[in-house]
Amino acid sequence: WKTKQEMADEALFLLLHNEMVSGVYKSAEQGEVENGRCITKLENMGFRVGQGLIERFTKDTARFKDELDIMKFICKDFWTTVFKKQIDNLRTNHQSIFNLSTAKFLHLRKFDQWKVYVFCSFQYLAFTCGLIRGGLSNLGIKSIVTAEVSSMPACKFQVMIQKL
Amino acid sequence: WKTKQEMADEALFLLLHNEMVSGVYKSAEQGEVENGRCITKLENMGFRVGQGLIERFTKDTARFKDELDIMKFICKDFWTTVFKKQIDNLRTNHQSIFNLSTAKFLHLRKFDQWKVYVFCSFQYLAFTCGLIRGGLSNLGIKSIVTAEVSSMPACKFQVMIQKL
Repeated sequence: WKTKQEMADEALFLLLHNEMVSGVYKSAEQGEVENGRCITKLENMGFRVGQGLIERFTKDTARFKDELDIMKFICKDFWTTVFKKQIDNLRTNHQSIFNLSTAKFLHLRKFDQWKVYVFCSFQYLAFTCGLIRGGLSNLGIKSIVTAEVSSMPACKFQVMIQKL
Repeated sequence: WKTKQEMADEALFLLLHNEMVSGVYKSAEQGEVENGRCITKLENMGFRVGQGLIERFTKDTARFKDELDIMKFICKDFWTTVFKKQIDNLRTNHQSIFNLSTAKFLHLRKFDQWKVYVFCSFQYLAFTCGLIRGGLSNLGIKSIVTAEVSSMPACKFQVMIQKL
């Protein structure tokens, strides 16, 4: 159960995120090429926000042991701050791939109601991919983050760590 | 004193807001006319977010007695949800003007450090003006909201209610 304040924070984030997505799309021309540029723009916004958040969150945090320890922090503390819940499931191949899955992703909520929007879903995931990538980057991990929607509103993020 | 979660929410909002402001400005051409259009765009974003928030907040709220009652709600509940503190001072001429002042406005924080940004300050106030106007609009009050920075980071918002 979420408190009233948590629901309000979630609503604020949801509304701001929607404004960002539609702002980026409105300011660009239509067309497939431009769509790619919008995704990149949103991903970069997420990246900077993720960096800023991690900077503030890890001030009083103990040093991390390893990559798995960092990924657990992202799935628990970081995710809870932003989305008011943890990532439901974290899997890894114990090399460089981590799969984070959530049964109910905040920004996919509206697709429950308006099924026509399903094809545009990636524009609602780009910011969050950037958020994860930015957070990891500030903890010294270079990564590629992609997202996949199998069945709404469930969602899977894949983090591929780029070894130096 | 703020909790860790409140500080995190504040940071998230601050970072998202900064991304919105710089996103709107980056996507526009430079020049004075365009600057006016950016302000309007940010104000409109704030308006829609304010409408959305009030819609969610007032679901279980008792009906308001009058305009002063509504303004008090905006200064207490609404402001606390968004900014994690109340408006410090509310004054009215008991006709149609309300002055809301706050000694430390969240989005003016960076100006403490970089004084050069002081002239651009209105771009950091437009979204919040819209937020108030959108909130009031959903409560049936048509208004014009302006902002004024006398000494950083203090800030005053003026609400002029438009009688029908």
